[in-house]
Amino acid sequence: MAARERFDHEIQAIQSELLKLSNLSIQALEISFTAFIEKDFDKSKLVIEQDVVINRLEEEINDRVILVMTRQQPVAKDLRRLVVLLKAAADMERVGDYAVNIAKESIRIGNERFITSVELLEDMCFKTTVMLRQVIEAFVDENMSKAKEIAEYDDQIDEMYGNIITHLMRLSSVAPESISQITYLSFICRYIERCADHATNIAEYLLYLKKGQRFDLNQ
Amino acid sequence: MAARERFDHEIQAIQSELLKLSNLSIQALEISFTAFIEKDFDKSKLVIEQDVVINRLEEEINDRVILVMTRQQPVAKDLRRLVVLLKAAADMERVGDYAVNIAKESIRIGNERFITSVELLEDMCFKTTVMLRQVIEAFVDENMSKAKEIAEYDDQIDEMYGNIITHLMRLSSVAPESISQITYLSFICRYIERCADHATNIAEYLLYLKKGQRFDLNQ
Repeated sequence: MAARERFDHEIQAIQSELLKLSNLSIQALEISFTAFIEKDFDKSKLVIEQDVVINRLEEEINDRVILVMTRQQPVAKDLRRLVVLLKAAADMERVGDYAVNIAKESIRIGNERFITSVELLEDMCFKTTVMLRQVIEAFVDENMSKAKEIAEYDDQIDEMYGNIITHLMRLSSVAPESISQITYLSFICRYIERCADHATNIAEYLLYLKKGQRFDLNQ
Repeated sequence: MAARERFDHEIQAIQSELLKLSNLSIQALEISFTAFIEKDFDKSKLVIEQDVVINRLEEEINDRVILVMTRQQPVAKDLRRLVVLLKAAADMERVGDYAVNIAKESIRIGNERFITSVELLEDMCFKTTVMLRQVIEAFVDENMSKAKEIAEYDDQIDEMYGNIITHLMRLSSVAPESISQITYLSFICRYIERCADHATNIAEYLLYLKKGQRFDLNQ
């Protein structure tokens, strides 16, 4: 195989690993959130246990990228590509960490009845998983217009975050006896919002890759 | 200059840039927080305007790392070092972003009197800047024991975060008319906690670099 062909082949392989990692992380988020809604603590525990698989996959991607860099000594543009793969893997791995955090909060809330509707949180989590799937598609297809849409989604998530936190604050004023649960709910909201941030980070890397400079979609 | 010497020289230079970036970001956090306490909105605006300098410095580090990778084609261990420099720069740049976010919340709160003591927030922000300085020292000196201490600090920050949020929730129940300010204060608390998270990330990279595997101190 020619050097170029070998390089493209390796990039493809690493991209497949990233796709696998992304799917695992997004699934972990979905399962963790469903477990929270359904108070299915066995499912929450499963998410916590399975996180090690996601962590290991990220390490594999790291090692593989370093190996390609060393062996094939790619030129600047290709290197940038590899660096961006590394960074995207790190962001997706963190989504798995937040799934774990949600699982832990869920266990803390326990069998106590939800003192408020969790519909807004459900919407927010659903939108976040859509964002994560879309950004990873955009990444693989190098679809710039899809990547740019992510920034708009992120603004919506930030707004949802603000609304939910304000709602929870108001709730504290009428149900002070439930402050523990309200605090846990606010943490879950925060973890979801961070997952959306990671989707935005990945969109930024893609724009950086294509245009050769970093864009800050979070501003 | 021999190849090895040239490489070490470049690594040193990039490390100096990272140190500069870190100092700017930590300063931005400190200035932004002081401006928040003192209600000095001109200072807050300055932090927002100056963030572009931090962003540009991160881009320069990115480009410089890619250049060294291409020109000097380093072996695996050296590549890992460069990748870790890239990642640390990204984390430090985000600290600058959170300083901007704090400045924006501060302007939103405006001249309204603080409805609660901000002492806990001050403690938390102070501890976070100590963590950030320590992790960057640990990084430059490759001091493992210092890096490991960061994980303990991070647990303290998480605890402080929990205490402050619970306090703010309680406050909402007795001062429902101040829910906007309470929400803004909770956002500031969240931004500080994220800065501490970034310090923990950098500590993890260092451990990864030394031991050749990724450690998850956030767990």
